[in-house]
Amino acid sequence: MRMIKPLADLYEQLRRLPGVGSKTALRLAYHIIDKPDDEVKQLVQTLLAAKQQIKLCTVCYNLSDQEICSICSDKTRDEKLICVVEQPQDVMAMERSHGYKGRYHVLHGVLSPLDGVGPDNIRLRELLVRLRISEVREVIVATNSDVEGEATAVYIAQLLKPLGIEVTRIAHGLPVGSDLEFADEMTLARALANRINM
Amino acid sequence: MRMIKPLADLYEQLRRLPGVGSKTALRLAYHIIDKPDDEVKQLVQTLLAAKQQIKLCTVCYNLSDQEICSICSDKTRDEKLICVVEQPQDVMAMERSHGYKGRYHVLHGVLSPLDGVGPDNIRLRELLVRLRISEVREVIVATNSDVEGEATAVYIAQLLKPLGIEVTRIAHGLPVGSDLEFADEMTLARALANRINM
Repeated sequence: MRMIKPLADLYEQLRRLPGVGSKTALRLAYHIIDKPDDEVKQLVQTLLAAKQQIKLCTVCYNLSDQEICSICSDKTRDEKLICVVEQPQDVMAMERSHGYKGRYHVLHGVLSPLDGVGPDNIRLRELLVRLRISEVREVIVATNSDVEGEATAVYIAQLLKPLGIEVTRIAHGLPVGSDLEFADEMTLARALANRINM
Repeated sequence: MRMIKPLADLYEQLRRLPGVGSKTALRLAYHIIDKPDDEVKQLVQTLLAAKQQIKLCTVCYNLSDQEICSICSDKTRDEKLICVVEQPQDVMAMERSHGYKGRYHVLHGVLSPLDGVGPDNIRLRELLVRLRISEVREVIVATNSDVEGEATAVYIAQLLKPLGIEVTRIAHGLPVGSDLEFADEMTLARALANRINM
C-alpha cells in the first residue's frame, strides 16, 4: 500500500527536519492530521511569524526581532568585551550561565575548508568592522572545542593580534561535578595543561 | 536572557508535538529560522494541504484523499473479511506484511474507561452498521496487545457474537527470529498457551 499523496508529501517534508527520522516523521504526520484545524492553523501562523519577524541584529548578528538585539542595546553590559560564538544557540547557553556581562558576536558558522567554508562565509569581516569602529578591550573566543572550532579560534587570534586587542579563549577542562576517573584522555590532558594557581 | 517572542512562540508550538522534548524543539526552531523562505513556505503549504485533503474513508475510516479509500475500492480484496485496527498507522503496518488481502476497519481509538473513552467514542457503531449492511464472514481483531487493546478485543468479540460472524484475534507469541532465552514471561506464556499442531 502506498501512502496517499498529501500524507506522503507531509512525511517527506517532516523527514527533512534535523533529528527527525522516518518513524518520528510518520508519527508527527499522523499527529498533525489528527489535530483540530485551528491548532494546525496556529502552528502554521507561528511558524510564518517566526520566519518573518526574526532577523539578525545588525551589530552582533544574534537573532533578534528588532534592528538591534536586547543585549546590544543593554547599556549595563560591557561593550568593550566581546564573546565570539558560532551560533545563536551558543549565546543562549552563555546567558544561561549568568557569568557573562559583555556583548556577543555570532559567526553563524565555523571555518571548515573540507565543507568549503572559508573566512568569507562566516561573519568574520563583520567582526573586524565592528572592532574598527568601536573600542574593544578583549575578545573572548568561545567557539566549540572540536577541530573546526579550535581552528577558527586560532585563526581569529591571529587575525586580531595586529589590532592590539586582547584575545582569550574560554577554558577547557573537567566539567564541574564530574569524576576524574571517567574523564576522557583529551579533556584530562587539557585540564592538566591549563592548570591554574590556587 | 529571555527568548525573543517569535522564537519563544515557535518553540512552544513545536514542543507540543509528540516525541519532541525541549532540546529538540529548540533545535527545530533554530533550523526553521535558518531555512530559506521558500522552503519554509513549502513546509507550511504541505502541512495545510495534508490537513485539508486528508479525510476519513466513509467505509473503513482509514485516512484517504478520496471519499472511499484505495483499499475499500479495490475489487480484488476480500470484502467479506474485515480486520479491525486501532489507528490508521496500524493499517500501514498490516499492509507492509503483505499477508492480508481483506478490508479494514479503523476504530480511531481503544476502549479506556480511565481516560473516559467508551464504546461511543470509537468507531464501533460504524462497524456494526457496516456489518449489518454488508455480508461479512470474519472479523479479525488486531488491536494492540496492551490492556486497553485486549479489553477492546474482548468487547468486540462479545458485541459481534449475536450477529453470527466469526471473530478472530491475531496471534501473539514469540517474534520471528527472536531468542527464546530473551523473551519476556508474558509473551512466552502466551506463546505456550497458543501453541499449534505441527
